[in-house]
Parts: sequence; structure tokens; C-alpha cells
Amino acid sequence: MPIFTVLGAGAMGAALCKPLIESGWEVHLWGTWLDDHLLDAIEAGQPHPRINVEAAPGIKTFRSDQLAQALEGADVVDIAVTSGGLPKVTEMALDHIGGVKALCLTSKGFWTDPDGRIRLLPEAIRSIAADKGVDLPPLVAIGGPVKANECGAGEVTATTYASKDYPTAEELARDVATDTYGVRPSDDETGVELCAALKNVFAIALGIADGLGESTGVPRHNLKAASFAQAIREMSLLVARVGGNPETPYGLAGVGDLEVTGLSGRNKVYGVRLGKGEKPDEALAEMDRLEQTVEGYPAAPLAVEFAHQAGATEEDLPLLHTVARILAGGVDDVYGAVAAAVKPMRP
Amino acid sequence: MPIFTVLGAGAMGAALCKPLIESGWEVHLWGTWLDDHLLDAIEAGQPHPRINVEAAPGIKTFRSDQLAQALEGADVVDIAVTSGGLPKVTEMALDHIGGVKALCLTSKGFWTDPDGRIRLLPEAIRSIAADKGVDLPPLVAIGGPVKANECGAGEVTATTYASKDYPTAEELARDVATDTYGVRPSDDETGVELCAALKNVFAIALGIADGLGESTGVPRHNLKAASFAQAIREMSLLVARVGGNPETPYGLAGVGDLEVTGLSGRNKVYGVRLGKGEKPDEALAEMDRLEQTVEGYPAAPLAVEFAHQAGATEEDLPLLHTVARILAGGVDDVYGAVAAAVKPMRP
Repeated sequence: MPIFTVLGAGAMGAALCKPLIESGWEVHLWGTWLDDHLLDAIEAGQPHPRINVEAAPGIKTFRSDQLAQALEGADVVDIAVTSGGLPKVTEMALDHIGGVKALCLTSKGFWTDPDGRIRLLPEAIRSIAADKGVDLPPLVAIGGPVKANECGAGEVTATTYASKDYPTAEELARDVATDTYGVRPSDDETGVELCAALKNVFAIALGIADGLGESTGVPRHNLKAASFAQAIREMSLLVARVGGNPETPYGLAGVGDLEVTGLSGRNKVYGVRLGKGEKPDEALAEMDRLEQTVEGYPAAPLAVEFAHQAGATEEDLPLLHTVARILAGGVDDVYGAVAAAVKPMRP
Repeated sequence: MPIFTVLGAGAMGAALCKPLIESGWEVHLWGTWLDDHLLDAIEAGQPHPRINVEAAPGIKTFRSDQLAQALEGADVVDIAVTSGGLPKVTEMALDHIGGVKALCLTSKGFWTDPDGRIRLLPEAIRSIAADKGVDLPPLVAIGGPVKANECGAGEVTATTYASKDYPTAEELARDVATDTYGVRPSDDETGVELCAALKNVFAIALGIADGLGESTGVPRHNLKAASFAQAIREMSLLVARVGGNPETPYGLAGVGDLEVTGLSGRNKVYGVRLGKGEKPDEALAEMDRLEQTVEGYPAAPLAVEFAHQAGATEEDLPLLHTVARILAGGVDDVYGAVAAAVKPMRP
């Protein structure tokens, strides 16, 4: 039985184990030094505290000091830790991935390289591997509309696996698919990673439209829909700028993931607060108090800087820049600002 | 002052008058023989009964027997009647459009031509004009995410104007835009019309996912998002098949319009009923009783036939076919059927 090791026992890591078990893998789930209580729950047969779903039966769990054992004999590895934790976990794991055929990535976000440039997470992995002199197996970016609690419960989920080494993506897609977990292979690692990193920022814009509607009793569905289309347009433009496929945002990784992120989630909820008139910093403090991390908040200025590096202007990406300005506290008329950003002035 | 005549005083016709007045047109609103009560309300300064918004001040109203007067001196005309009423109104109007520079179309749907083939509405207009020996001005298809009540209230709205004669679309887009009504010109009449005709069918699929979630208490957001992405994929494939631009569904006309249709509207509500386990015919009867027309219901088999004519198979368009089968009453396991349709088996 081939072995699939998942690094990180948070919501997404634990959720991924469900289709892996069902598609016939021996699944090793390694928890970081922050995950002990999550592994405790899994080992006790209790629901995972983050997704309120019991782990698939048969998972083998490994504690933070058992990384070598977790990776021993692994055929495929997925990194599923937070973007902040990724460099350290990658560095630790690279000593033990000699026989691995594919290194997957469900972690998402931006990474600031040692020169201060904003990069996508696969570049962090490549950079660390180069520093260590380790040859990497093909990287596989996992993206698309996956709410962890639904995936972990075995509900229908469609996702995309993208690798510069397309045959690896295609083979893995076939080997992990189940009746309820469908996987579309792709060759566009860059596009899938960038869509995922941008979607939390744009989800704030969707929330703003909802909040404007809630606060006035007059829905702003036209604004939300226009914002949605504009977000996809900007994703496509920026993906193309950095060498990805401009069509990737039109599929599961863009349209699909933005739809699911706009339906629920903390970034959207934060946007609703802004749409209702809360100040960005006060709303963030209140979300912090409720232990609700808003990933789109720190991601917005990184996304703007990433775009700047790629030569994309504010005129190219008006909605991205507008959200960033709103979050920085520089906008009094939120409705007017978003409206101006989504008004299709140019063909 | 140039004259813009809108034919049909229903929700969309009345709503369109708002940006037209604000962008400086003399607006003539003609009501059909079914619209007298709507014109009564507008003339009395009361809210329009269908959208609960007062008409923009300055509109000139015309009764059904005043079509010639409504069209006298018109520079631009928009047909905004139901798809069923379009052939008759077109035939009547074509006698009076000698000086018109653009003939717009907010009516949407399919048309069965005299040979029994399924066509888009501009083909109905062209066919009727050919029969009458009338030269048509450029046609302009108006699409995108426009809820009439929001547009009529002057809320932010982004739309697209598409014409095979692109300069006409571009000029008109500039001439009707306001601070809150943004217009993106396009040269893809076919794509815009087909997206609009298909979206009500796909909105039923989005409603089904919502209904499955409501009935079980477990959201089906992954399914809804996968259905959304699959709907856009199928729109793009079919648009390309009939000579349109496959990218049109990725913008306001597809992604935008499906988003707004999936947020609310009767097709989505009907889908929710199906997701909760109601039988298609019983749910439709109940919607009829509430005077809620479900446009996607009759459109589904027409869309399937339209696709068949274009050589697109069930394998190309699994979600469209699945919704049509569900509506025809042939599916017991709605969740399983939609899941199978959105599972990305093929790259």
C-alpha cells in the first residue's frame, strides 16, 4: 500500500486524509509542535476540534518529534501547515524525502524571500531545497474550492492538482480521486498558487457588498456580482503577468475557490463588518478577540507589492488596490470606492 | 436631446430608464397591452409594482396603442418584453425604426424558429426583419449581472453591451454610462445572449446545493462552488461551439450574471426546493401558485436541444443535462446526480 504523509494536522491536513484513506493510501498524519491537542482528539476518536468531524479510520498519527518516522517510506508528501510555518517545516522535512515521488502543497499564501521580494510558497520550498542542496521531487499545488469541514466529512468536493510536471499531477489526480473527491489535473502551478493567495483579499470585497446590503436593508447583489467578475479579471491579468495561464482563474482555482470563500469564511465576515461601517482596525481587533484570523488582511499589502514587482499597475488591478487602501484605513466612502473599482470603464 | 425608447414597462425596462435619464437621454417608455397597470403606477408617481422603486423623473410613458409615437424620432430602441412577447412586439416595432441607430435587447431566452430549431433571440429579430424586408440597425445585446430593482434604484451596477458592430457597442456604452451604471462593450453578441439564456438553468443547480445544505444542516458549499465552476466551463464550451468567444462567460455576462442569479431569484429558490427533496413538478406547481415564474424550467430542455443542434454532447455538458433530467423528474438521487456531473474526471 503506497504511503501518503500529510504534514500538519490542522483543518486542511486532517480533511485531506479522508479522500486519501478512501482512495486506498496508507495515511501518515504528522502534527507540528502546535498540533498535539489536535492529534489527541484524533487518537481518542473525537471530532477534530477545527472542523468538528471525526478523522477517517485508519490514519496513523505522528507527533512533532516523529517526523522521520512519519516520512519513512512515503511515496507522496503534502505540506499543510500555515504559510508562516512552512519554511521551518520544509527545512525539517527535506532531510527525509529521498524516495518521495511528489511533494504536494495545500498551504497557501505569500512568502517574503531573504531579499525582501514577495514570492509564492513553492518558491520558498525551492529556495530552501537549493540552500540545502536537496533535489526536489515534482511539486504539486493543490487548489480549488475546498472547505475543510465538508471535505473531511466526505461531502462532494472538486479540487485541482497542478504541477509543472503535468504527468505527475495527472497520475496523482487519478490516484487520490474517490466518488466524492474529484480532481482536475493542471500544469499551471503558478496560476493555482496565485489564485489561492489572492482570493482571501477579494473575498473581503465580496463581504463588503454583503455588509453594505445588510446595513441598509437594500441588497447590493449587483455590486457583489460585479466585484466577483472584476476579481476574476484581475486574477487572470496578474497570473498572466507572472507567467501562469490566464485561464486558470476561470476554473476551480479561481471562480470555484472565490465562490466558496464568498459564501462563508472569516475574510468574508470581516468584509461584512467593513461594509456595515466598522473601521478596519477596530473590526480586525474584534475578529482577533473572537480568535478569527483574517488572512486577507495581511495578504492585501503583500499582494499589492507582488503585483508591483510584476509590473501590474493600479489601473490594471483597481479592486485589489482599493481593498488594500480600505484595509489601510484610507477610505471614508467604502461603497463609492468599491463602485469605482468595479465600474467597467475600459473594454 | 437624443431619444431612447424602451419597449416593455416590466421590471427590466423600467429599471433601465434610470441610468438612461441620468445619462441625459429623452426616455420614452412604451408599455404592452399587459402593462397598463405598471404605467398607471409610474404616471401616479408610485413605486413600480414589480421592483418597488419609483421611476426616474422625466420618463415619457406611452400606452400600447401609442407605439408609433413612442418610436417617433428615436435614436436608440431597447426591446425589454418577455421572450414570448418578443416576436409580436418586434414585428410591430419594425415599421417605425427607420431612423434608429441601434436596436438593443434586454429580453433574454431561446426562440423556436418556424422550422423547429432552437435559436437565440437576436435571430428571431433578424428573421422577422428579413420576412418584412426591413433593414435592421446594429443589434446590441445587453447582459451581465443586473437585478432590476437595484439598477432602477440607482445602485451600483456593471453590465455589458455586445454588438457584432463593435463601434456601436462602444459608443453606446459611453453614452449610457453614469457614475453608478458602468458598461463594458463587447463584440460577442452570441456569447452574451447564450450566457443569459443558460444562466437560469444553472442557477437551479446552485439552488439545489443550497437546498441540500438547508435540509441536512450541513452546508454543501464545496458542491455549490464546484457547480458554479462547472457551469461556467459548460457555458464557455457551448458559446465556442456556436461561434461566440469562449472567454465571454468568464466576465460579467457569465461569472457576473451567474453570481447574481445564484444569490437570489426564483430559479435559485426553485432549486432550493429540489435540493430539499420536493418533486420537480410539485415544486413548480407551488411556485406557480405563488406567481413565481421559474424561467429555467422551460429553458432547460430548450438548452439541451440547442446544445444538441450545435453538436455538443452530454459528455461535454454533464451539468446542463443533469439539471434537465432532474427537472424532467427522472432522478431520484439529486445529490448523487449533481455530484457526478461536477466531478472533474477529465483534464
